[in-house]
Amino acid sequence: MTPKDPDYQTKIGELFHRAAFVRDVGIELADVGPGWCETTLALRPKHFQQDNVVHAGVEATIADHTAGAAGNSLVGADKYVLTAEFKINFLRPARGERLSCRAEVLKAGRTLIVVESEVFSHEGDAAKLVAKAVVTLAVLQTNQDD
Amino acid sequence: MTPKDPDYQTKIGELFHRAAFVRDVGIELADVGPGWCETTLALRPKHFQQDNVVHAGVEATIADHTAGAAGNSLVGADKYVLTAEFKINFLRPARGERLSCRAEVLKAGRTLIVVESEVFSHEGDAAKLVAKAVVTLAVLQTNQDD
Amino acid sequence: MTPKDPDYQTKIGELFHRAAFVRDVGIELADVGPGWCETTLALRPKHFQQDNVVHAGVEATIADHTAGAAGNSLVGADKYVLTAEFKINFLRPARGERLSCRAEVLKAGRTLIVVESEVFSHEGDAAKLVAKAVVTLAVLQTNQDD
Amino acid sequence: MTPKDPDYQTKIGELFHRAAFVRDVGIELADVGPGWCETTLALRPKHFQQDNVVHAGVEATIADHTAGAAGNSLVGADKYVLTAEFKINFLRPARGERLSCRAEVLKAGRTLIVVESEVFSHEGDAAKLVAKAVVTLAVLQTNQDD
Repeated sequence: MTPKDPDYQTKIGELFHRAAFVRDVGIELADVGPGWCETTLALRPKHFQQDNVVHAGVEATIADHTAGAAGNSLVGADKYVLTAEFKINFLRPARGERLSCRAEVLKAGRTLIVVESEVFSHEGDAAKLVAKAVVTLAVLQTNQDD
Repeated sequence: MTPKDPDYQTKIGELFHRAAFVRDVGIELADVGPGWCETTLALRPKHFQQDNVVHAGVEATIADHTAGAAGNSLVGADKYVLTAEFKINFLRPARGERLSCRAEVLKAGRTLIVVESEVFSHEGDAAKLVAKAVVTLAVLQTNQDD
Repeated sequence: MTPKDPDYQTKIGELFHRAAFVRDVGIELADVGPGWCETTLALRPKHFQQDNVVHAGVEATIADHTAGAAGNSLVGADKYVLTAEFKINFLRPARGERLSCRAEVLKAGRTLIVVESEVFSHEGDAAKLVAKAVVTLAVLQTNQDD
Repeated sequence: MTPKDPDYQTKIGELFHRAAFVRDVGIELADVGPGWCETTLALRPKHFQQDNVVHAGVEATIADHTAGAAGNSLVGADKYVLTAEFKINFLRPARGERLSCRAEVLKAGRTLIVVESEVFSHEGDAAKLVAKAVVTLAVLQTNQDD
């Protein structure tokens, strides 16, 4: 896939820096290329729910934000993406020291981009797939509202 | 709908108190009855993303947790629910002072409970529907893992 | 909600007449207004699967097509809608003489319309909610491809 | 993945033979192994909608049924699966002579199996991914109802 904005990596770095909620949760950009993005999250007590597994909201947040970054890598400098909807399946309880997420664009259209995100939990050397999301992004003109 | 655990309101109150991520985000239980739950979240700078709208992850978290509480109101004292999957559509940008969420059970089965959650944003006296989720919960025996 | 095409009912009638698959399955338009649509399907042996319940594909087809018609009621004469994605939860086994579906628009944007569809099965005088879908429609210019 | 029913291929062959709707639509089993299934559908005029693309309901039906077969390959002889919910994204208009679908199990639990299905359209020698679904199946005891 070909990026339309040659400076897309700077744009996406800013996306992570300026997104207050993502910074507050602790999600960090690991790598990004045209049509894909990888992120990581060091797990702390605040990410858990009552039964000592990561809260579904944390997994949803990393899946959504990583998908948005993957989509943003393919739009022009005058455009950005906003999540229209996503669906996430929780496959196994997420525990351990770290989450990682890899998002890949399935289809990049003029007005819609569809991305799939896989979330992994890491415990020692073992990684397991804990959630899978499919995300629809709307491509918007900067300053446009729908 | 009829609660199987007469003490379900205590159980759900604890769900909010013990869920670290939900406390950290700031989501509070407003009301709960058999098959439904209402929550509220005072919006602060940390809930936003780069373009000054609430991050999708915040809306997903309140939709998911409120649905889980609605589902928990209908299971026995020896059971609890875990989110199997959810889908959320973002209908309008969420801005303002407060989010609220109302979740209602659509179907309570022996092993699966399906709940819909509506998320509203409140700006002054105006409330608008900003997101809608449909959530599938798995009913588990306490201490059971799948 | 206000229709942009005063002749929308004719357009939607043609949608049902010209859609070969919908005619083949047997889905019929019952009623349509601005932002909503109702359809009906007389159940025949061909609609079932091995265990004598209606096949999920039949319920998905009526939910999707009825949502598309509800969305089409709100777009201009030079526009049409195409399903971008949908999610459907199957709440109870569907049996009986007839299915009906009611779709209502949740949000009509310039480029995306979100609709929810409820599918009911009818056995004698009893109706029950058997499936619920949330559908995202893309609004396209006639002859446009994305 | 390991099948629990050594005779699973016979069971799945019957699933296609006895499912009236699947036979009526024309979907055929191409191949099946432990945790995956492939199907094919020769496109005929009846599968299309008004704008000469395959109806979303056809793609949803093949995605759902193929996922169900993939899930059935992993359950015991006294068990079967029923679709709890699915979400499908339509990535490109489906045209051509034939659809094919490949479904793979993402997670096989005791009570829930999650499967992803990819639908391809074939025009001459060219194949393109036209839809992607993620399907949650409930594992039921034969004669059990939920």
